[in-house]
Amino acid sequence: MRDVIRATPLYKFLRLCNSSPLEKTVLDCGAGGNDPPLRLFVEWGYETVGIEISNQALDKVEKFCRERDMKLTMFKGDVRKLPFRDETFSFVFSYNTLPLMSKRDVEDTIEQIERVTKPEGLCFLNFVSVDDEGPADSYYEDGEPDYYFTGFDILHKEKRIILIGKEEKQAYIDYIAKKKLVTS
Amino acid sequence: MRDVIRATPLYKFLRLCNSSPLEKTVLDCGAGGNDPPLRLFVEWGYETVGIEISNQALDKVEKFCRERDMKLTMFKGDVRKLPFRDETFSFVFSYNTLPLMSKRDVEDTIEQIERVTKPEGLCFLNFVSVDDEGPADSYYEDGEPDYYFTGFDILHKEKRIILIGKEEKQAYIDYIAKKKLVTS
Repeated sequence: MRDVIRATPLYKFLRLCNSSPLEKTVLDCGAGGNDPPLRLFVEWGYETVGIEISNQALDKVEKFCRERDMKLTMFKGDVRKLPFRDETFSFVFSYNTLPLMSKRDVEDTIEQIERVTKPEGLCFLNFVSVDDEGPADSYYEDGEPDYYFTGFDILHKEKRIILIGKEEKQAYIDYIAKKKLVTS
Repeated sequence: MRDVIRATPLYKFLRLCNSSPLEKTVLDCGAGGNDPPLRLFVEWGYETVGIEISNQALDKVEKFCRERDMKLTMFKGDVRKLPFRDETFSFVFSYNTLPLMSKRDVEDTIEQIERVTKPEGLCFLNFVSVDDEGPADSYYEDGEPDYYFTGFDILHKEKRIILIGKEEKQAYIDYIAKKKLVTS
């Protein structure tokens, strides 16, 4: 068994995905980096796809896979224009990527995520809270991202404030939501 | 592989335990219930021991183990008087148990936890925040539990506020700390 992924809030999402009757297909929007969370879903038997715009982040995930002799399907692309047909994936997540985008781009991205998610599929998305003291491109009040989830039922909403002493305070708001069967 | 445990904040603790050079022994203080978190540590190759005072919670863990044909070592006992020698365990955690105790009992319990933890061993403990709106026996301001950790270096401190709509707001403060090599 491989090590626990760094993006530990995704374990709660995985738990909900595991209990869904939908087929095990998952998309990560902003999937690159040193410790790609998709590997957890591979270990749990999911068919996975990642999309990532940064060459540097793609290089890192390639190095990660090479060193561990594993394969992850990665596309270079823009999460604001997902190159997939409607309702392709049962599960879609984006971890620590939306905070690097303007609110306008976040809105476009979540529209795309909603589009490619199957009805009754699940999404995990996180945002940076206004309580965060570090750099980010968009900050949200506690309930503010609700606005993006009109096509979903929100299953879980959690604010995480990292309080460790000397560093800048970090504060995130995590959402787990289920796409409505019929959107009005 | 068995399902993701409900107590998902413990994945961050497991990640740190996995990267420690100490032997893989772990104690859960308040270990009973429907979904015993110790099973995760068993899956990862740890030698585990649980202590639990409630017969009902012990019955639940027994049922859980019987249904899955697995074995967990559980003692009936009081976490305020841990029946173990000094420095027995590399890793000790208590998840959602301290909130059911008075602050006086919490203090006694953490003294015991410190005693049975090996030097440079790790602990995970969580508390209920004053921002919580549900029932608990002790509530803490953000930095207040620091008081208990003078024999430790605090590695991680995170406040988690569950914001889901209609229910009472829940708010926890999680600590992960490393016992000092020499306590003064």
